[in-house]
Amino acid sequence: MSAASAARRVDSALEIVVLEANGYAAYGMCGLPYYIGGVVDGAESLLAHPPETFRADRGLDLRLHTRATLIDPDRHSVETDHGEQIGYDALVVAAGAQPTRPPIPGTDHERVFTIRALEDSIRLRGLIDKGLVRRALVVGAGYIGLETAEALAMHGAEVEVVEALPRITMSVDTPISDVVEAELRAHVHVRLGAAVMALEPNGDGLVARLADEDLRDDTIDVDAVVLATGMRPDSQLLTTVGADHLPGGAVLVDDQMHTSIPDVFAAGDCVAHRHRILDAPAWIPLGPAANKTGRVAGTVAAGGQATFAGIVGTAVVKVFDLEVARTGLSAAEAGPGALTCDVVHRSRAKYYPDGHPLHVRLVFEPTGRLLGGQLAGRDGVAKRIDVLATALYAGLSVADLAELDLSYAPPFAPVYDPVLIAAQRAVASLPAVSDT
Amino acid sequence: MSAASAARRVDSALEIVVLEANGYAAYGMCGLPYYIGGVVDGAESLLAHPPETFRADRGLDLRLHTRATLIDPDRHSVETDHGEQIGYDALVVAAGAQPTRPPIPGTDHERVFTIRALEDSIRLRGLIDKGLVRRALVVGAGYIGLETAEALAMHGAEVEVVEALPRITMSVDTPISDVVEAELRAHVHVRLGAAVMALEPNGDGLVARLADEDLRDDTIDVDAVVLATGMRPDSQLLTTVGADHLPGGAVLVDDQMHTSIPDVFAAGDCVAHRHRILDAPAWIPLGPAANKTGRVAGTVAAGGQATFAGIVGTAVVKVFDLEVARTGLSAAEAGPGALTCDVVHRSRAKYYPDGHPLHVRLVFEPTGRLLGGQLAGRDGVAKRIDVLATALYAGLSVADLAELDLSYAPPFAPVYDPVLIAAQRAVASLPAVSDT
Repeated sequence: MSAASAARRVDSALEIVVLEANGYAAYGMCGLPYYIGGVVDGAESLLAHPPETFRADRGLDLRLHTRATLIDPDRHSVETDHGEQIGYDALVVAAGAQPTRPPIPGTDHERVFTIRALEDSIRLRGLIDKGLVRRALVVGAGYIGLETAEALAMHGAEVEVVEALPRITMSVDTPISDVVEAELRAHVHVRLGAAVMALEPNGDGLVARLADEDLRDDTIDVDAVVLATGMRPDSQLLTTVGADHLPGGAVLVDDQMHTSIPDVFAAGDCVAHRHRILDAPAWIPLGPAANKTGRVAGTVAAGGQATFAGIVGTAVVKVFDLEVARTGLSAAEAGPGALTCDVVHRSRAKYYPDGHPLHVRLVFEPTGRLLGGQLAGRDGVAKRIDVLATALYAGLSVADLAELDLSYAPPFAPVYDPVLIAAQRAVASLPAVSDT
Repeated sequence: MSAASAARRVDSALEIVVLEANGYAAYGMCGLPYYIGGVVDGAESLLAHPPETFRADRGLDLRLHTRATLIDPDRHSVETDHGEQIGYDALVVAAGAQPTRPPIPGTDHERVFTIRALEDSIRLRGLIDKGLVRRALVVGAGYIGLETAEALAMHGAEVEVVEALPRITMSVDTPISDVVEAELRAHVHVRLGAAVMALEPNGDGLVARLADEDLRDDTIDVDAVVLATGMRPDSQLLTTVGADHLPGGAVLVDDQMHTSIPDVFAAGDCVAHRHRILDAPAWIPLGPAANKTGRVAGTVAAGGQATFAGIVGTAVVKVFDLEVARTGLSAAEAGPGALTCDVVHRSRAKYYPDGHPLHVRLVFEPTGRLLGGQLAGRDGVAKRIDVLATALYAGLSVADLAELDLSYAPPFAPVYDPVLIAAQRAVASLPAVSDT
């Protein structure tokens, strides 16, 4: 809908058809855990606009429950699951991403959910509201797994999080993921390095058969299972007709969102975005870039001018009372040549109440170039990561970072913000540069 | 103490004498309103370290209650109010700033306070704790006046804020100061464009004689008066011996904190800092730059290397339930050639509870160069202004700002952060550039 609305702004007379496979257009997908958790009351709150707004106010021919099944690039047409052929002058594919389904027997049970389609979340919330989810299994400890574990726990459910890897999987390094893990363990059961071998029906619910790294078996009875083991780009429409893509399927586009197929654009969670720090395309499906690339694709497809500036990989997540954020490259992503600096500092003036420890990790080159940053703490994390995201966009060094004139008042920060303190330590840790 | 401690880190054998006119060293001056308000319980909490830490751990010859009264640059010595002559190889003057006393008859009454010396704040808090401040007058509606009005109101005092200018005086433009004014009026009495003509003793308290712009007189009985009408650099020590300075008295220094007098450095609230956006020295006395310049002065004075990168004029203040912040130049400071853009946007995803309107003002050149920004809202202001402060440091344009990859999750921001929305609007408002 970002693309379609942008196209309309460029050309008020353009015929714009929007095909949506599901029954809802432009809903806040990132809000699903909050709807499930009851923080957001009604599912309709998640809709950016009702369909009438798109149809009547913006003049978009929005067709819900209509799936595009095949593109014919030569004939410039798209086939739908209703058997129609729809011609196009320009086509924007914004098919998004789909949850991966791990190869576990039994995931087709009706009490097994993924968090992506609004319909599934409505169904899960319905079970919860009926008091039918007293014990739940969340498979996967990434962003969505953690948010969903919190959502289920908010209803008083006993929650078990099972993650195959030995740590929380949030593209943060161990010093930060350890903080997240501790917060998670304070609220739910967590098994890391453990696999779900099978899900079996058991009354209305399921029995999950688990195995840990030592292949010790265990079983747990649960009322519902949420699969949050990752996502894949929903790009088959494009890859089957030869669009260039990354090995995982993310479609390659230029800064105007052209795919390798003439007159076909792609945007949103199905494309690889230009990563400014990697200087390469990367698949990091998150809302802001999805929206921005949608606007660019729609604008250019309609004959306007727009360019996407790329991403630096910024993300934030709330995990119970903790805020966790990251931007740029983690040490793991940056590779062995990168340096890191970790500090823990109070988030406010030391005498001001309700300050909390803020964990800061910086990742940087031996030259001092900033590569990334990670934060975890109980307040002031989300917008603090944005200082680092801005510094990354601008190509600042850790020395620059240490010099920033950041805001200070006792309720909000210490006189040296924790980010500045981390940058000072990073500068002090740089290898001495010979003057010769 | 920042300078002295930095000097010690450079040279463990250096003899370092610190003269402090008052009885406390290195206290959190910005915390005084919170101590007065009772948010901070004991005055000792405001001390960065007890004197023993500086003396024993850092080997500093800290002399409290000892005022430097005269510098003799030729003889490289300083005279104290104890009649001593103390020789120096290098001298750092960090005398700070003093509240200006408006030329109002009666300000020498013992119930008239300024907010700068810890001793005065302890005395005011003592009166409050005895229940003796039921009605108070705050003269001046700048940062300190607003923070002090809140502090007094927290104790249930009826507070009257009187400001000679017709608006809140916080170096923000009217769209933002109007938001502050509304918040202030929700909690205390506010008279703008009104002057205090005289303060007269009245029992233990005072009668304040007021006049508004139409010269209508009024009087109010108060138990205490706080003067918060501005500050001046405490630079006479240096200016009387010819140090270059701005007309208002702020001492001019280079990026290593050298004054124009050989072997004499200055730092903190008594110096003009290099303003990166003005590209000129400016006197904006705030804690972070005072600390940083202290470190630079102490480091260089002791023979080390350090450089101050300058300021961009970032400040944040809490005014009751509102957070207000600014950085760079206001429209008033930037002059008539500057453009502005104002948006009000919710601070979180629209469906997430407890979001509030966030007021954003951007100031920029017709070329698109960002000159400054201002924010007011109930959450997420302090660290959001730091995005703009970082952008200013890096010399970004509003087009760059609109492209930033800022963090998003429903509890923390909408998918387009209000700062991005303001930047998008600013870009759209730029005059068209001819292609020729």
